[in-house]
Amino acid sequence: MTFPHETSIVVSADDERALIVYVLTKLGANQRESLIQADVLTEADLRGHHSHGLQRLPVLAARIRKRLIRVDVAPDYVWTADSVLSVDGKDGLGPFVAESAMELAKTALEQRGIIAVAIRNSSHIGMIGYYCEKRAREGFLCIAMTESEALVHPHGGTKALVGTNPIAIGIPSDSAPFVFDMATSTSAIGKIYASKHRGEQIPLGWAIDAAGNPTTNPDDALKGSLTPAAGPKGYGLGISIGILAGLLPGGEIGRLVLGTLDTESRCTKGDLFLLLNPAAFAGGPTLTNRVASYLDELRHSPPQKGCENVIVPGDRARQLREERLRSGIPLPKEVWLAAERLKDEL
Amino acid sequence: MTFPHETSIVVSADDERALIVYVLTKLGANQRESLIQADVLTEADLRGHHSHGLQRLPVLAARIRKRLIRVDVAPDYVWTADSVLSVDGKDGLGPFVAESAMELAKTALEQRGIIAVAIRNSSHIGMIGYYCEKRAREGFLCIAMTESEALVHPHGGTKALVGTNPIAIGIPSDSAPFVFDMATSTSAIGKIYASKHRGEQIPLGWAIDAAGNPTTNPDDALKGSLTPAAGPKGYGLGISIGILAGLLPGGEIGRLVLGTLDTESRCTKGDLFLLLNPAAFAGGPTLTNRVASYLDELRHSPPQKGCENVIVPGDRARQLREERLRSGIPLPKEVWLAAERLKDEL
Repeated sequence: MTFPHETSIVVSADDERALIVYVLTKLGANQRESLIQADVLTEADLRGHHSHGLQRLPVLAARIRKRLIRVDVAPDYVWTADSVLSVDGKDGLGPFVAESAMELAKTALEQRGIIAVAIRNSSHIGMIGYYCEKRAREGFLCIAMTESEALVHPHGGTKALVGTNPIAIGIPSDSAPFVFDMATSTSAIGKIYASKHRGEQIPLGWAIDAAGNPTTNPDDALKGSLTPAAGPKGYGLGISIGILAGLLPGGEIGRLVLGTLDTESRCTKGDLFLLLNPAAFAGGPTLTNRVASYLDELRHSPPQKGCENVIVPGDRARQLREERLRSGIPLPKEVWLAAERLKDEL
Repeated sequence: MTFPHETSIVVSADDERALIVYVLTKLGANQRESLIQADVLTEADLRGHHSHGLQRLPVLAARIRKRLIRVDVAPDYVWTADSVLSVDGKDGLGPFVAESAMELAKTALEQRGIIAVAIRNSSHIGMIGYYCEKRAREGFLCIAMTESEALVHPHGGTKALVGTNPIAIGIPSDSAPFVFDMATSTSAIGKIYASKHRGEQIPLGWAIDAAGNPTTNPDDALKGSLTPAAGPKGYGLGISIGILAGLLPGGEIGRLVLGTLDTESRCTKGDLFLLLNPAAFAGGPTLTNRVASYLDELRHSPPQKGCENVIVPGDRARQLREERLRSGIPLPKEVWLAAERLKDEL
């Protein structure tokens, strides 16, 4: 998602991070909670995923004030089996809960080879590719799954009963790590809101209205539901992720998932991270080299008409991030001003 | 896939299994190898997945005779970390190697909570939902991934460089287990062959020709490549599974994957199974009950116009299996006769 240039303001990643840390600290978050939350939001804006960036700060602040999110918490980390870390996040800030859990899990990863980190009672963790990229840069493989509210209809159904339940995968490589991040819906709810905001129609196939008919009208789509990506495939993956990342860690599923984005409900979703140590596998010694070669083979293969070149998931976001680290992040003025106002209110 | 009734013969699952066991035993396979291979093929036919059923037996027989598949083998099972079982299948029959590895892995699953079984040097494992359903019936969660030869073009590319790399997920439930099985390509290569065989066109969007243009001609599609499901999503998942199930266990990826279906090459693909013990997770005690309720909520939700009712992945295959256990499996006469001929040749 990009914003029209006219209403934009350009900020540095450092300034964005500092503003978020300032606001969260004033709201009572400790340094570690504030720093990780600020980093997740800023890294999303750096990659152009603005729906997961600074624009979430006012909702976060409102949730903290209403004590729907608790700050300065001590989550419970319990090894419920040799290779399973079960986490009660105590309604804490999601990125802090997740990163702290993975710091602990990593200490056992050499011995175990694979570890599941299963989290409940924790707020929205933001762009899940963030965690996968971090783990990949540390030399580990990471599969991350989380849940949204029920926004997607079953394949063949008409009622929103499945989350957009995304999955991300991070893999270390001799060149930049491979980071792939997808929702199991055709499109993201943020894109429907963006079309509505711009007064534009949405493409046919993204959503159905409340009566179950395909629609190009964003208002009707928001009253209806999103389509699952590739029909039965996105539907089946969405259910699977709801069970693996939601029910298994002790969270909710489907219409019982609440509080990821609103300012009314405790957050009831769950998260699941699978961490794998390549050194524990037969293919480990050559993995990063083989991954880099394969990705380059893909990049150098012939493109379709109308495509400049073949890309690998994560390439475009990484390139945008590098540009924005140099020349700043363009943000809608209203997003920046809303964040600045929070600072003044406190 | 179904076959025209005129050329069909109806056989019982027991007869199919017995024929396969007879042929494999004559070819030197031991009892356990034969029984598991026969069960995987027969269960595919019971579910209507004929491309993964008895029609594979002649290829299997030819591969065994050419010693591309080794029979009566002792695979190497090595715990390369507490929770990682690394398997060198010694070019053995894939279903035997996989099931034997998981039997061993299960003995440690109560203690570990999650185990990765990573397999190399093993032949085609057939319908991967088979393993997930078995584990789910035993009370475990299972994520299975495997590779095919490079048949799919990159999103935006024109050359077949990615496998159809499927993923399956099995989850225990108080009613029938949840079993979801998908390829990361829009369609399976078997469906293209079936259209060619029937002299029919394929739907636009399934494949491109060798020049990179969308095609409805199955011959052009077979010279070209399959499209990734949902474009960048199937593409990213396909790469991820190639790395996780191929490179990580010590197998190959992309164009270096050979020998899953032909009679010329050793099989170089890999497989990855992740087994999870629900008892090791906070949501474990209520999991099977919650899964059954959620799946029923989906089934009882309002269907779209033209759909009789909403189904859950696996429902249709399970219903077909029950019917066929009662009234037999319709198979093309040529498939049954080819298998019978093998029996006579030996």
